Parts: sequence; C-alpha cells; structure tokens
Amino acid sequence: MNGTVVQRIARASPELIGGLATCGVATVHEAQGRTGLLASYMRPIYPGARIAGSAVTISAPPGDNWMVHVAIELLREGDVLVIAPTSPCEDGYFGDLLATSAQARGCAGLIINAGIRDVRDLTAMQFPVWSKAVFAQGTIKASLGSVNVPVVCAGALIDAGDIIVADDDGVCVVPRSAAADVLKAAQTREANETDKRARLAAGELGLDMYKMREKLTEMGLKYV
Amino acid sequence: MNGTVVQRIARASPELIGGLATCGVATVHEAQGRTGLLASYMRPIYPGARIAGSAVTISAPPGDNWMVHVAIELLREGDVLVIAPTSPCEDGYFGDLLATSAQARGCAGLIINAGIRDVRDLTAMQFPVWSKAVFAQGTIKASLGSVNVPVVCAGALIDAGDIIVADDDGVCVVPRSAAADVLKAAQTREANETDKRARLAAGELGLDMYKMREKLTEMGLKYV
Amino acid sequence: MNGTVVQRIARASPELIGGLATCGVATVHEAQGRTGLLASYMRPIYPGARIAGSAVTISAPPGDNWMVHVAIELLREGDVLVIAPTSPCEDGYFGDLLATSAQARGCAGLIINAGIRDVRDLTAMQFPVWSKAVFAQGTIKASLGSVNVPVVCAGALIDAGDIIVADDDGVCVVPRSAAADVLKAAQTREANETDKRARLAAGELGLDMYKMREKLTEMGLKYV
Amino acid sequence: MNGTVVQRIARASPELIGGLATCGVATVHEAQGRTGLLASYMRPIYPGARIAGSAVTISAPPGDNWMVHVAIELLREGDVLVIAPTSPCEDGYFGDLLATSAQARGCAGLIINAGIRDVRDLTAMQFPVWSKAVFAQGTIKASLGSVNVPVVCAGALIDAGDIIVADDDGVCVVPRSAAADVLKAAQTREANETDKRARLAAGELGLDMYKMREKLTEMGLKYV
Amino acid sequence: MNGTVVQRIARASPELIGGLATCGVATVHEAQGRTGLLASYMRPIYPGARIAGSAVTISAPPGDNWMVHVAIELLREGDVLVIAPTSPCEDGYFGDLLATSAQARGCAGLIINAGIRDVRDLTAMQFPVWSKAVFAQGTIKASLGSVNVPVVCAGALIDAGDIIVADDDGVCVVPRSAAADVLKAAQTREANETDKRARLAAGELGLDMYKMREKLTEMGLKYV
Amino acid sequence: MNGTVVQRIARASPELIGGLATCGVATVHEAQGRTGLLASYMRPIYPGARIAGSAVTISAPPGDNWMVHVAIELLREGDVLVIAPTSPCEDGYFGDLLATSAQARGCAGLIINAGIRDVRDLTAMQFPVWSKAVFAQGTIKASLGSVNVPVVCAGALIDAGDIIVADDDGVCVVPRSAAADVLKAAQTREANETDKRARLAAGELGLDMYKMREKLTEMGLKYV
Repeated sequence: MNGTVVQRIARASPELIGGLATCGVATVHEAQGRTGLLASYMRPIYPGARIAGSAVTISAPPGDNWMVHVAIELLREGDVLVIAPTSPCEDGYFGDLLATSAQARGCAGLIINAGIRDVRDLTAMQFPVWSKAVFAQGTIKASLGSVNVPVVCAGALIDAGDIIVADDDGVCVVPRSAAADVLKAAQTREANETDKRARLAAGELGLDMYKMREKLTEMGLKYV
Repeated sequence: MNGTVVQRIARASPELIGGLATCGVATVHEAQGRTGLLASYMRPIYPGARIAGSAVTISAPPGDNWMVHVAIELLREGDVLVIAPTSPCEDGYFGDLLATSAQARGCAGLIINAGIRDVRDLTAMQFPVWSKAVFAQGTIKASLGSVNVPVVCAGALIDAGDIIVADDDGVCVVPRSAAADVLKAAQTREANETDKRARLAAGELGLDMYKMREKLTEMGLKYV
Repeated sequence: MNGTVVQRIARASPELIGGLATCGVATVHEAQGRTGLLASYMRPIYPGARIAGSAVTISAPPGDNWMVHVAIELLREGDVLVIAPTSPCEDGYFGDLLATSAQARGCAGLIINAGIRDVRDLTAMQFPVWSKAVFAQGTIKASLGSVNVPVVCAGALIDAGDIIVADDDGVCVVPRSAAADVLKAAQTREANETDKRARLAAGELGLDMYKMREKLTEMGLKYV
Repeated sequence: MNGTVVQRIARASPELIGGLATCGVATVHEAQGRTGLLASYMRPIYPGARIAGSAVTISAPPGDNWMVHVAIELLREGDVLVIAPTSPCEDGYFGDLLATSAQARGCAGLIINAGIRDVRDLTAMQFPVWSKAVFAQGTIKASLGSVNVPVVCAGALIDAGDIIVADDDGVCVVPRSAAADVLKAAQTREANETDKRARLAAGELGLDMYKMREKLTEMGLKYV
Repeated sequence: MNGTVVQRIARASPELIGGLATCGVATVHEAQGRTGLLASYMRPIYPGARIAGSAVTISAPPGDNWMVHVAIELLREGDVLVIAPTSPCEDGYFGDLLATSAQARGCAGLIINAGIRDVRDLTAMQFPVWSKAVFAQGTIKASLGSVNVPVVCAGALIDAGDIIVADDDGVCVVPRSAAADVLKAAQTREANETDKRARLAAGELGLDMYKMREKLTEMGLKYV
Repeated sequence: MNGTVVQRIARASPELIGGLATCGVATVHEAQGRTGLLASYMRPIYPGARIAGSAVTISAPPGDNWMVHVAIELLREGDVLVIAPTSPCEDGYFGDLLATSAQARGCAGLIINAGIRDVRDLTAMQFPVWSKAVFAQGTIKASLGSVNVPVVCAGALIDAGDIIVADDDGVCVVPRSAAADVLKAAQTREANETDKRARLAAGELGLDMYKMREKLTEMGLKYV
C-alpha cells in the first residue's frame, strides 16, 4: 500500500474554503455536528494564525521525511500539507528549507502529527504550523510512504482534498463533500451569535435568554 | 448531591484580594506554607494576566456546561469562575459567548480543569483563562451539577469564596479564613526580598548572604 | 558520590561558543550527527531567546535547590546553568532571586529538567530558561547534591564545560572536545543552505535539486 | 500547618467497612452519586486484592517518607494508609520493611500517590498497594509533614477516618459520615443487579429490560 | 450525523476470522504492510486472551454509554464490540452487566478507547477487553451516538465488519475487503518463520541467515 | 559517530553479577547512593523475573532494528541487551525470532526504551523484557547505529559492560568499576535489614528502632 502518490485530487472552491477560514475552528466544528477536531495536543507554533485550505496528505514512515518532497510538487495555491507518521513520532520532519519550498508553491500551512523545527524562521516567514511537538530531531530519506491517500492524523480521518481549518483553537477537518453544508450551517450559527453576544454583553443571563430555568427546576436543581 | 446551588457565599474583602493579586502566585504559595497550588498543567491562554478573586465554583459533569449558566447569575464584581469536571475531560466548556456574559457580570477570569475555546476572542477581550487544554470540542446541557460547593480542581481543594490567585506561574488557592494571615506573610516575604534582591544584583552570593557555607561543610560538601 | 563540587572546569573559547549560538539548535544537532538533543518537553519560558554557553551542571536531589547557590559561585561570564534532579520532579527550583544572583555573575540562562517560577520577572529580566514545567512549588535546602559532575538531563548526557545551545527549537548539548569540529560542520551546512534556500524560494523542487526522482522510482514509487 | 499529627480519629464500624469492601469500588462509587474515585492511574501492584478500611492519612513532602513512621504508630487493625505528596512525585516511599511494620500493626493496605518498591516482597506478603508508579527511588527523612489531616490524593479529598475501598477497578473514598447511607444504597443496587444479570444472561436485551426503545425513537435514533 | 444505526453489516467468513486470530496481532500487522495497529495504550485487562471477530462499532458521546445497548442487539456470534468516544474520555462505559448481555449474544470481546470497570468479574467471566484505562467512573444515557458507522479508535480507522485481531500485543484492525489477502500473507509469513526460528534457536546468526554482512560493510559499519 | 561496533568489552565477574541479581533493584540502587535507576515507565512484560548481566548496548535509529542483529553476535552467556533509540520511539524492535536468537547465544534478557512484541511467546520462553511499551509496530533495516557505545537509556547512562539489574521494581545500572563496592554495600544493607525486619514484624515501631522521636520533637512535630 505504501509508495502510492495520487496526483489529482478534487478541491473545494476558494469561496467555500475562505468562508470556513473566516468562521474558525470552534464554529466549524459545531456546525458539522461536533466532529472533525484533531487532538488537543496539536498546537500552533505562534499565536494568531488562521487558515483554511485543501489537504495534501502524507502518510510517512516514522522519522522519514522523503515523501514531503514528493508532496510539495503536488501543492496548489492555498493548499495545506498534512503529515501523519505511521507510528508515534516526535521527530522534526519539517524546517525552514521545506517551508521555503512549500511556501513558494503556495502552501498555506502545515499540520503535522510529529515534530517541527526552525520555529523562529517559520515564525518570521509567517508560515503557520500546528504540530504535536517542537523538536529538532533530524529525519532520514530511506523509505517510501504515500501521498494523497486517506490518513488518520491526531485522531481524525483526513482525505486529500478535505478542508483543513486551523486557528488558535486547534485544527478541524471538513470532508470536501460536506463543505458547502457546513459553511452554511456555520454562517447561520455566526449570525445567531451576534445578537446573543450583544444581549449577554448587556447583562442578560443565558438562563433567561435560553429559557433554561424551568427545565433546570424540573430536573431538580435546588437553590439553597 | 448533584443539583445544589449555594446562592450566598462569603467573600474576602477587596483589599485582601487586591493585596494577594499584587503578591502573585509564587509568593502567596510560599506565604501559606507551600500549599494551595493547582497542577502545573493549568496554563494561561495568554501571557501577562495577573488576577485574584473570590471563587465561584462549579462541579460539572464531564462534557456538560449547563451549570456555567447557573453560576454566572451568582457572580459579583471581581469573582473568578472555577470549573471542575467530575471525571477527566478536555472538552471546551467555555468560549466567547460565555466569556461575554461572565465579563458583563464582573467576572475577573476563569480557572478550568478542562478545555477552553475561542482563545483568540478571549485574548482580544482580555478575559484571562487558566486551563488544562485548548480544545474546541463542544459540550451538552443535559445533566445537573452543583454550584458553590467544595471541589477538587487540578489537585487542589477549592471552596466557594476562597481566593484564587493566578498569573504566569499558574494558579494558587487561599482558603478565605486564612487570607488575612497569608497576605501579611506574603507582604513580609516581599519586603524581605527587596533587600536581598539588591544585594544579589550587586554580586553578593547566596552562600554568604544566607550563611550557608558552614552548614554545607558540616554536611560533608567537598570542593575538588 | 553526592556532595562533590568541581571548582575548575575547562571551557570552550568564546568564539566557538558564539559561533554555535549563531548556528542554532537544529543546525548544530545535524552537524554533530543528529545527537545531543534534550527531550522535546524542554520549552523556553518566552520566545526568541537564543543562547550558547558552557554548562555548569548541578545534580540536585528532588525538590532541593541548595546546590544552586553553590553553583552560582562558580559561574563565569556566559555560562549556562544546568539543573538535573536525581528523580523526576516538577518543583520550582529557581525564581527571580536566584536569577538575579546568577545574572549578576554573568549567567546566560538556565536549563532545568524540573519547574521554574517567577516567569514574569524572568521575562522582564530577559533571563532565558528552558524547563520541563512552570510550577511555583517551593523547594527545600536539606540535602547535598553535586556541582560540575556529569549529569543526564532530559535524556542527554551533559558534562561540565560542554556547550549548551538553546533557542526556540529546544536545547542541544555539544561535548567540549567536539565543539570545533561541530562548529565547522555547522557553518558548512549553513553555507550550503543559503543557495538551496534561494533555489527553493524560486520554486525549484527538492525532487529536482536533490535528484530524488530516479531513486524514488527505483524504490517503487507509483504515481496514479 | 505542617508538623501536625492528629492522634485520635473517628472510624466507621467494622460492619460498615466490611459491607463496603464486599460491594467493591464500582458499586460504591455509583451508590454515592458517582463521586469519590481516585484517578485511573492508581493501579494495584497485583491483581485480586479487595479491601476497605479507615484512612490514616499522610501529607508528605515530595521524596520524604519520615511521616510514614509517625503514621504507623497510629494504625489500628484494618486501617488503610493513604500517602499524598505535596507536589508531584514518583519516588518509592514505601517498601518491604515499612510494609512489615504496617502489617504487624494491622494495616490492610496502602494507597499512595507516588511510587512503591519491593513489589515482589509485598506481593509475597499479600500486602496490597495501589500506587501511581512502581519505582525504587529512595526517599529521605528531613522534613515534617502531617498525619491524619485532610489530603487531596490523586484528585480525591480524603479525611482521616474516611473509608477507602479498593479493588481491581481502582480506589474510591467514602466520607465517614456518609458510609451508612452509601452502604445501604450499594446493597440495594447489588440486589437489583442480581435479577438483571440473570435476565441479561438469558439473552434479554437492555433495550427491552430498561424500556429504552421509545425514548431513543423520540430522540431521533434512526435504524438504516 | 449522530443517531444512525446501521443494522446490516457484511462480515468476513468464520474461516478467515479464525485464521487471523491464530496468526495474532504482530504477524497480521506485518502481513498487511505494517498498518492497522491501535495505539499502544490499548491494553488487555488480563493476559492470555487472543481473539478475532467482526467489528460492531459504536461512536459514543463522551461519558454516555446509551448506544452500547443499541449495539448489543445487533451482535452476532463472534462479533467484537468497538467503542470510540467522540472526545477523549476515560469513563467506565462498560462493566459486568453489559458484558453479561454481550456475552449472551455471542460477543467475543470489547475494544474501548475509554475506561472499563468490573475487571474482576470480567476476568472471571473470561470476557476479554482491551481498553485505554481501568476506571469505575459511571456514565449517563442522555445523548445519541451512532452504531456501525466508521470510527477512528485509538488512532485507527475501523469500519463495521472489519476484522479486529487482539492479543497480548494489542489490537489490530484488518479491512474486511483485505482479509483474505492478509490472511494468506500472514500464513506465508508464519510458515517462513518456522524454519528461521529453528535455525536461530540452533545458534545461527541473523547476520548470516539474512546475509546482512556485506550490506552493512557497504554502508560503512566499522568493527573496532 | 554512528556505525561503530565495539567488539570487546570488559565484563564483571559472574560472582559479582550473581550477587547483584540476588540483592535486587531497590537494594542495589540504595547501595550505590540512590543512583542508576531507569525511568519508572520501564516495566517488565511478565512478573517475577529477576536478572543481572553485563550490558551489550545498542544505539539505534528510531524504528530501525538492524543493529540488534549485529549486537547478538557479540553476546556472551548471561549478557543483557540494552536498546536505546536516538529519538523517542515506541516501535516494536524485538519479538520472538530475535529473542530465540538472543537466547540461543546466552542472552539473559532485554532492556528497551521502545516497544516490544510477541509478548505471549516471550513469556512462554521465559525471556524477560523491560520496555517502555508493548507495541507490535514493525521496524526497518535501513540505517546504521552503534553497538557497545555509551547510551542514555530511559534517563540513565549505560556503558557496555556495566551491570544491569532488573526485577519487578524496574531496572538499575551499576557501573562496572563500582560493581564490587556496590555489591558489598548491598549485602551489608541486606544483612542489616534482616534484624530490622524481624523487630518490625514483632510490632516494634520504626520511631523507636531508629530513635526518631527526639528529632521529630526538636523539628516541631506536634501531636494533637
């Protein structure tokens, strides 16, 4: 199964992708039925980055970053690289040279269930990364992996062309086929929240706004 | 035992609370006999926040944030929300809407032994949070918990009205009944440190300042 | 074995040390054959610090920081303190008073396989620390340890006088005897990377630049 | 606060304690409203042990087992030692000599939020221990702690005289004042389960026995 | 997406399943190209169990075991239950009553990325479980999940009807469509190993048997 | 530095090694000044094994077990293999074929800071292993490592020919040059404990036997 590179992948439209980026991880996650989050240990290397893009996936042997070079050739403007080692690994698969190359091909950022290095340079380049660890440990180029095959990354199933949304809250994946519906639901959710936010800011209580008091009493909540 | 909401809690005076905030976590922890620290995994979502306030405690079912709404009604100016799930959980109980509501009621910040989300918004709002994880995972509103009952949060016992002190070093709880004594001890400790700091900055050694050389020799320390 | 303080240690030249600091952790680690990294959990308390210096090592009992005072007397300009507890520990051995004292003696920073406290003050002082945890838990002064003996710290063997290189990528140790060769290899590596970086930035692929295509085909990589 | 030894503690009756031991951890935990469990990392050193007993609590400095000797003097037949370090620690506070001494005084077992050693001997003696780690690291006798004060151990609040229930499922604490009610609830629960077990063993489904089908349909469950 | 129960699933033949059980986890994992392993934290509750069976999957809300009852109705002789919470959770979803029910319906065992309880009873019943934790924490029945949908469990993608192989080495999943090929490859692998084992047992070296010496020399291995 | 195989190593005498095995990990660790323990996560795959032997060390690339074959050739009767990956790794480097080969060459057991597989077979063969994980993940044979060079394994420095002592309490390393002294100290310690054990078993208190009461009072211990 290793050693397969899928060259052509379907991508969602830039409008869908841009819309999801604007909504952000928490809203998108809610909008698609509370699914798609990667594990909480996937943290950004610097605060403030907010991206969305089509996943170019890499199933990589532990400690071997050869396939990253293969994947970079397949990147299109706005894509997000996703690296999933086949066994648990913290090695630093990716640093400033690869980021330079990926950025030159239009890559919007990296999601890696392993280590990252050269974080100072990556920060200066504003190349955002969400990783399991910061670790300079070098990798080799000895074994094949695969590119643009489905991977499980940090607990989430990601297929090539799925939309990755990432910000300070972490990383969420949206299946490409669901992207339009999810965006719509996310935007509806956001619209609803504007009014709620204003009312809460004015001091109205969620207990009243959401009419929770009666149900809480029924359930037996006792004020003492 | 679940389903109890204690409406009235005793609070320490603003002077005591403000004094403890100024002393900070490390000094307060030392001043009360090296007790009261929450686990080291409780980290702030942004650097630089320093708060103290009376604890409004929430014992919450895992993945269920219903009681937060109940607790917000009970907040007074300067209080600190404390959320302790009853089994280990990283779910994101709290985000920008709840923060807006809590802040509107005067809440000074949140301590949560679980996840937090919307950290970008919370940072923009300057609503400080110390949490176990950043995780967007949504929660439900299905089961009762309790408010203002004693909880164990990240390894520390916290009762409603106890004073929470939190800064870049983490989180410390001071029992309300001990607050005056602890503040006094903390301020004494700080006063002592000013002189020491100046002498150390001038190059004097702790070995001399604390007169340690003799005891070290007695214990058998050998210079080679 | 405890209770030994080695007063005189050999140090690498300031030129070597400065050169290694400029190269940084990732490059130095590669240049010495991918060895010398400390565990990935050793994180800086603030971003942006880049240091190198001769290790003054402390083998400390868990929760006992007495030997830090002994070690500070032995510091010379530019040295880096290395604290390795003899059993796993997160206690806060070191805070602003010790940092003031160490900085006054020329200390360039601290590497500690335990906790650190007063991180706000340390950040303000620009005293960089790489630690396993931020934790205010106080320590005692009851048992002897040793100073300037070889220690295993966060998985790496460090001898007094070895060169510590630390930056946003973590911490790497270079044996003193290898420092000149490692620096040379690191600088060669850096020089090579300048050209590569420019070519990659211009859109050239690593696949072509490193001539990987043929070997990948030989190994059986299939494009579909 | 350290340095206090409470000599006399109230204990539940042997009947209550024996009854709780028979019910076991899972049942007791449910019977008291799903509270009282210690963290899941507290594991027995050998399978099959089932105990209950009155807690004799030790608040111990990290890596210092002096107070264990103090506590052993206070043990009565059937008591359970509970050791809670004041900061995270895996050191081996307790081994075969202390177990011999504790067993000679009637001790039924040990709960320790730290390390244990001599597990081969303890197994041979059938002295049961639930610990965070097996680790031979030795401890010192330099600092005071306290005995029979309330402690937080592995996330649970335990007061001297509370009843500890421990078996292969872990450890649960029952406040002494609640013991009679909890035992009653636990025995009722057990009685109810006998019939259910028989019906389930005969192939009846929980869906039918608990009449869940209608509610599931109402909630929207769809069979496809 | 939640609230879906797929009633009919395709299953591999008993011969395939039995064959895979005989080969065991390590061999099956190798035979399918080193894929399919669940995370190493999935450990058996007692040693010696070796099973294989068709997966009946449960996507469950954290701390909510309602769907287990739904799934049990769908079990056929020899099936293996697979429970994957939708966010990280250690709660004890499953104990002796559910095991009694599942066993009565022919269930061969349970794989759960959460907690298990009543391990003493489960061991006595010889109902094997591989879990993330042993934890008695009770769960609720308030929210829907889904049954027989694809799940990610402990890092592996599992679809209903896939074959679960589990033994003392952990858990491996074989996609149903690949089962015949994997079994064949696994049996070939086993046959090859018999001869090798005998030669190695007789003292022949792997270096010679696999003819490694020349390649090692080429790569630069130096004996000193 | 990689690619070096040291063929001849000095070993301690069988008498020393056998003596240390009899004393066991906890006693040996104490006897050498509380040093030499490997991390507590190094656990035996089955209970009851007690070994000591000369270390044949392997510095291995992550996920690459080629060097194990090289090391096996160098084993002498009673040696213990020690495998230390150069970056964190849980892969299963070693299983029943390698164990068969190692056992045929006289190997007494394996210490591995990574994964182990075929634990059922290894248990049947009574080939003891202390490992970081049980994990079937396969490894490759692509890169060189080194044999019989100093390694840091699970936090401890181990040189070829050092004596490894391992039992249910974990793993301890004794530098070869210290072995005679450590054995003597360990045997003295054991002799002392026999009398103490008898007195404690008879109900004498450690407080009295070690004459602790006066010092505790001086330190301020208060009985209430």
